[in-house]
Amino acid sequence: MRTIGALIFPGFELLDVFGPMEMFGLLSKDYELNLIAEHKGAIPSGQKLAAVADHSISDRSGFDILFIPGGAGTRREVENPHLLTWIEKTAYHAEFVLSVCTGSALLAKTGILDNKHATTNKAAFKVVSQGPKVNWVRQARWIEDGKTLTSSGVSAGMDMSLGAISIMHGIERARKVAMWSEYDWHEDSNWDPFAKVHGLV
Amino acid sequence: MRTIGALIFPGFELLDVFGPMEMFGLLSKDYELNLIAEHKGAIPSGQKLAAVADHSISDRSGFDILFIPGGAGTRREVENPHLLTWIEKTAYHAEFVLSVCTGSALLAKTGILDNKHATTNKAAFKVVSQGPKVNWVRQARWIEDGKTLTSSGVSAGMDMSLGAISIMHGIERARKVAMWSEYDWHEDSNWDPFAKVHGLV
Repeated sequence: MRTIGALIFPGFELLDVFGPMEMFGLLSKDYELNLIAEHKGAIPSGQKLAAVADHSISDRSGFDILFIPGGAGTRREVENPHLLTWIEKTAYHAEFVLSVCTGSALLAKTGILDNKHATTNKAAFKVVSQGPKVNWVRQARWIEDGKTLTSSGVSAGMDMSLGAISIMHGIERARKVAMWSEYDWHEDSNWDPFAKVHGLV
Repeated sequence: MRTIGALIFPGFELLDVFGPMEMFGLLSKDYELNLIAEHKGAIPSGQKLAAVADHSISDRSGFDILFIPGGAGTRREVENPHLLTWIEKTAYHAEFVLSVCTGSALLAKTGILDNKHATTNKAAFKVVSQGPKVNWVRQARWIEDGKTLTSSGVSAGMDMSLGAISIMHGIERARKVAMWSEYDWHEDSNWDPFAKVHGLV
């Protein structure tokens, strides 16, 4: 059983969080899901609908898997040293660190992605792909580099999460999760038509 | 601007709700999202992570779009006359009624689907497809019949929601939403490989 700490903050993107949590949640004997935020309680998403943070970052930092979504709120959180310090510390001790969409901007800001390959969403690629030491990849559904997995925009988080399940439990188990959720998994992490749509390739 | 009332109940399936809410939420000038439950406040999903119901069904029934997800909790709610009465009344006055996965069991129980074509998730097809007057369709990603749209399991809700956006705003707008969320939309409502996986065809 691995613990997942999914960070949420005001303005997190709904599907960035709940697509992946659906996939991991279908393996309820293998993953314990937790939502965590700077302060416990109701946290409004970018779509206004709110989710409940079970923990505050002051309470807890030890998770096997640290999960960072994107969303409009990342623009504020990249300037939040309290949160960035927690992300850095929690990532350091985690077995895996996952980000979706503009969540990689938060990881990059802490230096966790330095000297690693990483990707982010394609509409905001030029804004997000900061950090001179990060090797930003323009075309990829998701990138695995050591213990970090970073995905492209919103829906790509589901594909990446199945990729992460595949690393931990084998591809057949990941395919079962896709089948249970009637999801058409893009197994190939290089599949990324959206890079072209946004003129990145 | 149309109002959406998305019903949640203990044991709702995360992605059934938040996949569609992501898609509608990307058109924030066209749709106002609301989560509604029997009682206001934190409602635990089937994956335990909780969302916040903004309204209780005692407070509000008028929505332009009624949205019903599935999940393990539907097994209890099909025996909840208070909730079923609310669904029936709200559906009657709504412009559109949408369900994902086993959410169609709740609609069927109220009689709303009588003499209509409908579908549901493919793993639970035989259990859910009750109601002698409903024309259950074994193979379909989603079914549009008059003002009701019912989808197949979990991820199919995203495809159906883009289909609903296409009805209301045209296919080009739906394709834009898919592009913004980097989602590989299955535009063809007949696309359904999962019916075969579960021996329904």
